[in-house]
Amino acid sequence: MKEKFYKYINDLQNKITDALEEIDQLGKFREDIWKRKEGGGGKSRILENGKIFEKAGVNISAVNGKLPKSMRTYLKVNETNFFACGLSLVIHPLNPMIPTTHANWRYFELYNNKSEIIDQWFGGGQDLTPYYLFEEDAIHFHKICKYSCDKFGKNLYSNYKKKCDNYFWNSHRNEARGIGGIFFDYLRNDNNHTIEDWYNFTTEVGKNFIKSYIPIVKKRKNTPYNKGQKNWQEIRRGRYVEFNLIHDKGTLFGLKTNGRIESILMSLPSKVQWLYNYQAKPKSEEERLINVLKKPRKWID
Amino acid sequence: MKEKFYKYINDLQNKITDALEEIDQLGKFREDIWKRKEGGGGKSRILENGKIFEKAGVNISAVNGKLPKSMRTYLKVNETNFFACGLSLVIHPLNPMIPTTHANWRYFELYNNKSEIIDQWFGGGQDLTPYYLFEEDAIHFHKICKYSCDKFGKNLYSNYKKKCDNYFWNSHRNEARGIGGIFFDYLRNDNNHTIEDWYNFTTEVGKNFIKSYIPIVKKRKNTPYNKGQKNWQEIRRGRYVEFNLIHDKGTLFGLKTNGRIESILMSLPSKVQWLYNYQAKPKSEEERLINVLKKPRKWID
Repeated sequence: MKEKFYKYINDLQNKITDALEEIDQLGKFREDIWKRKEGGGGKSRILENGKIFEKAGVNISAVNGKLPKSMRTYLKVNETNFFACGLSLVIHPLNPMIPTTHANWRYFELYNNKSEIIDQWFGGGQDLTPYYLFEEDAIHFHKICKYSCDKFGKNLYSNYKKKCDNYFWNSHRNEARGIGGIFFDYLRNDNNHTIEDWYNFTTEVGKNFIKSYIPIVKKRKNTPYNKGQKNWQEIRRGRYVEFNLIHDKGTLFGLKTNGRIESILMSLPSKVQWLYNYQAKPKSEEERLINVLKKPRKWID
Repeated sequence: MKEKFYKYINDLQNKITDALEEIDQLGKFREDIWKRKEGGGGKSRILENGKIFEKAGVNISAVNGKLPKSMRTYLKVNETNFFACGLSLVIHPLNPMIPTTHANWRYFELYNNKSEIIDQWFGGGQDLTPYYLFEEDAIHFHKICKYSCDKFGKNLYSNYKKKCDNYFWNSHRNEARGIGGIFFDYLRNDNNHTIEDWYNFTTEVGKNFIKSYIPIVKKRKNTPYNKGQKNWQEIRRGRYVEFNLIHDKGTLFGLKTNGRIESILMSLPSKVQWLYNYQAKPKSEEERLINVLKKPRKWID
């Protein structure tokens, strides 16, 4: 399973970076291959200063070894060996009319001291963070999420949509990071599903990611914007940084397992602003976005 | 004691904001008074877009009530009432030749269910974060720190200097946030000191803060700088944000005790950049700074 999924994320990394370069026309991904002292490593691809994308990172990694103490506490397991691999991407467009997106698909194995698998699961998700709200974009993104889920069970989309809204919640701001998507974790062998089923599910979601995001980029890439709208984007990016550094478990996992710091923090946008107590003007487009973030909405039936 | 110290930080807030406005000439502090639902509140003063200071916050607060569970675990105490008050300041200058500074002086009381004090202590510190290294500035800052400490014991400065280097350590980057200063906590009644002694010590440190920082501002405020140096400052500010959101216990305390979010996060600079894997050029001024941050130095004997 681990070889199969690693091959899959390798291929998917190529597909996604190709698709992003194709639409950007100017920016190119640079690749950094890194090794982790304790076992494993990764392949990071970053594009900066493109025509459309200000910063985009599409990284894969496969790490293994002894599970660090903090992660054992977090996962509630005893001393054990682990393997984890996954693809993580974050895309920050230049134009504030195009939303930022994030996605991650990952696979875990835990072993006993005879190197036998004692636990294994898939996890992942994808979410959209607009700076200006185009309802049809949110609906499109959620439709593709639902399409991927529906093949595998009729409640998956609504469960994972809820989990996404809960997870990407900036509790110290009392608002969502964005307009959500899907989020799932600990997809294990159970009465109704084999780990093979969850492999098929996770890879189906990953396969459809390009369809969920690229059409939105195409639709918005030529929408004009002004300096004030760009400032608003940079202020909202501050909330993105706050989420990732205060709340995000993926960032925490990377830091605690001694991952490559520049690969983990590629998720942070290039230019960010923190203005004291900045408030959206009443009845503005900016306020319309905030209202949706304060109260996550059901985008599709 | 709590009234006495609160009065002291009130006066000190006035003195510091007056001194900063005087040197800035253009920027004025705006004041926001806030109340905390569970008890207490604060007075925040923020200056933005000054001639010299891009963003400066000088806040006082006094909060009380039931100690939140997470703080009880952190302080290793049972359910209890608490009182905490303090002054926190962070100053981000526009000119990258002027260092950023942070300071905080605080007082805590814990009570049993008869409202008797069961524990009380002072804490605080101040540190300097340059973007370009002027050794004489670092020496000046440390000299004033030592001057404040020496009146109260001959080992205080060297102990608190070490604590400062340990505390402001960005462990995920393996570098210091800046060139240090002093940091102290849990200054309690003991065989050699009364709480009154620590009040005298903490207020002496606070009183001398202006002398430790303003002369550096005066010396550097007219030093010319270019776009590349400004970019470097904004990139290094990213490390400041990382420290505050990932490691800083003061930020954590504010978030966990339901403090006013805009007052807590006034510490974040206005404009920040994260460029992928940005490295200082070999033998540059930028690299000279990094070398000092990687290995904290003894500035004075």
